Amino acid sequence: MVSISDVAHEAHVSKMTVSRVINHPEQVSPEIRKDVQRVISQLGYVQNRAGRALANNRHYNIAFILLDNVNEIEPYYAHLLMHLTDALREEGYTLEMRHDRNFDLTNVDGFLICGARHSDFTVLNNLPIPVVIYGTESGITSVDIDNQAGTLLATKLLISQHYQRLLFLGMDIDEPFATNREMGYRQAMREADREVEIYRLPNNEHIVQRFLQNDDLSANTGIIAATDRLGLGALRASRQQGLQVPDDIGIVGFDGIYIHQLAEQPLTTVQQPLKEIAGHMVQLLLAELSGKTVESVYVVPKLIHGETTK
Amino acid sequence: MVSISDVAHEAHVSKMTVSRVINHPEQVSPEIRKDVQRVISQLGYVQNRAGRALANNRHYNIAFILLDNVNEIEPYYAHLLMHLTDALREEGYTLEMRHDRNFDLTNVDGFLICGARHSDFTVLNNLPIPVVIYGTESGITSVDIDNQAGTLLATKLLISQHYQRLLFLGMDIDEPFATNREMGYRQAMREADREVEIYRLPNNEHIVQRFLQNDDLSANTGIIAATDRLGLGALRASRQQGLQVPDDIGIVGFDGIYIHQLAEQPLTTVQQPLKEIAGHMVQLLLAELSGKTVESVYVVPKLIHGETTK
Repeated sequence: MVSISDVAHEAHVSKMTVSRVINHPEQVSPEIRKDVQRVISQLGYVQNRAGRALANNRHYNIAFILLDNVNEIEPYYAHLLMHLTDALREEGYTLEMRHDRNFDLTNVDGFLICGARHSDFTVLNNLPIPVVIYGTESGITSVDIDNQAGTLLATKLLISQHYQRLLFLGMDIDEPFATNREMGYRQAMREADREVEIYRLPNNEHIVQRFLQNDDLSANTGIIAATDRLGLGALRASRQQGLQVPDDIGIVGFDGIYIHQLAEQPLTTVQQPLKEIAGHMVQLLLAELSGKTVESVYVVPKLIHGETTK
Repeated sequence: MVSISDVAHEAHVSKMTVSRVINHPEQVSPEIRKDVQRVISQLGYVQNRAGRALANNRHYNIAFILLDNVNEIEPYYAHLLMHLTDALREEGYTLEMRHDRNFDLTNVDGFLICGARHSDFTVLNNLPIPVVIYGTESGITSVDIDNQAGTLLATKLLISQHYQRLLFLGMDIDEPFATNREMGYRQAMREADREVEIYRLPNNEHIVQRFLQNDDLSANTGIIAATDRLGLGALRASRQQGLQVPDDIGIVGFDGIYIHQLAEQPLTTVQQPLKEIAGHMVQLLLAELSGKTVESVYVVPKLIHGETTK
């Protein structure tokens, strides 16, 4: 049986340091923590986390709760989960996966939640342990991208490239992120003193393609899409009508995770920086756990230039 | 503070049953377990799992380890994780997320592993707790789809639709699943006494599209693709050469998770039944945990008919 002394010896640190890495990881520098954890797993030293948990009245386990419909927004989550798992491991915590509306407190110190909807917030507000959501809701610590800033960037890009008609393909759902993405377009159009033209559709490229087939997409049109799937539908409708992208039609999508690369022409898109978002979510949660008061964080997304703009 | 009696009263069961659900879930029927767990979370009853773990010398926690490159095979994992989380919760276990080659035994009863490569199996074989992999490796309990049966189905379909030239787009990697998908094509061609024509490429639709542009895809060609991304590249090369799919060119992909639906024409594909796979992985792991000897499981995939075959 590998002992704590073996670990200390192999990692060239004191037994006290090893014990701190195990019982009070927050008191040890990330570098030393990583070294010691590497040795711990190399030697197969088995920490008794149950005992450690009882001793510290901490579980060292954070639940990640996924409430979205995986089929619709799938490409985020494998990436987001990897980044959250890394960020938590850095801090000596593990991530427990959940995906229903069961906010069971067993064995968790806090919740990281994606896809929460209006109807969830009463419950979330009353949970007795820290909660950080990916999204926006007053009264709940949240990390979100500045959706309005994202579509503002996208719209300004297409204006600067001199497309005459500038239409917005939005989502037909009543959620803050959808509203904010539309607001960014409205703001840019107002500032440029241009007429808005807005369509709200299901987030499905096939539906968008059929919808735009009935629209005579005259050349020199710029399309700001609220998601990459909407942008993908716009790209296909344009090509089907024999229009050149980006010469005749300019398209900017939103999200920049996976789908934009799969398009026939890689989409120019507003990208959500998932690693940065995951890092903020973990830092905010751990700050709340240590009793600090925290502010919600908004991350400004970046434009990724593909082949659908000039 | 909510007591175990409150839970028993609300769930209309005895305190003994509640305690069993908490400490020996395997002794309680799934129905009762679900009822009691629902009440436990409704009332916010906090089980002390640390104490329970010490009492039973079990952690009630299974690590899921993702070793694949998420960027390449992303669409599986959000789905697979949901199904694994459900299947484990049914049995009173939680799922801990990991994605590095750190097989730390802390707080876990077993490992579920995806994306393990040849180089990992020595380590996996020497782990002191049960391991189930998604894939195929002698000596390790595994759940896998019968890849050869899948491409056999795909090839026979295209033969039956009277395509003359039948080519296989395989992957340029040396892994059992890639080899087995090629074998299914070879078998069907041998049985039909047809000449094989095989190309091995990176799993990237853009590369495949460029590759096939240099190939005069004569009409009446059937393409068996080892993945949906390869199939997507074939679809685009065909359309680009002005060929009609499926009249001139028939295409069958493989995987059937997400990407096939995003194609310009939904791909006919061989679908991996992820929910079934997740169920088998969990059942095999729990059987090993309770000391049973188990056999690896092979799941036969199904053909999903899209718009790329007649």
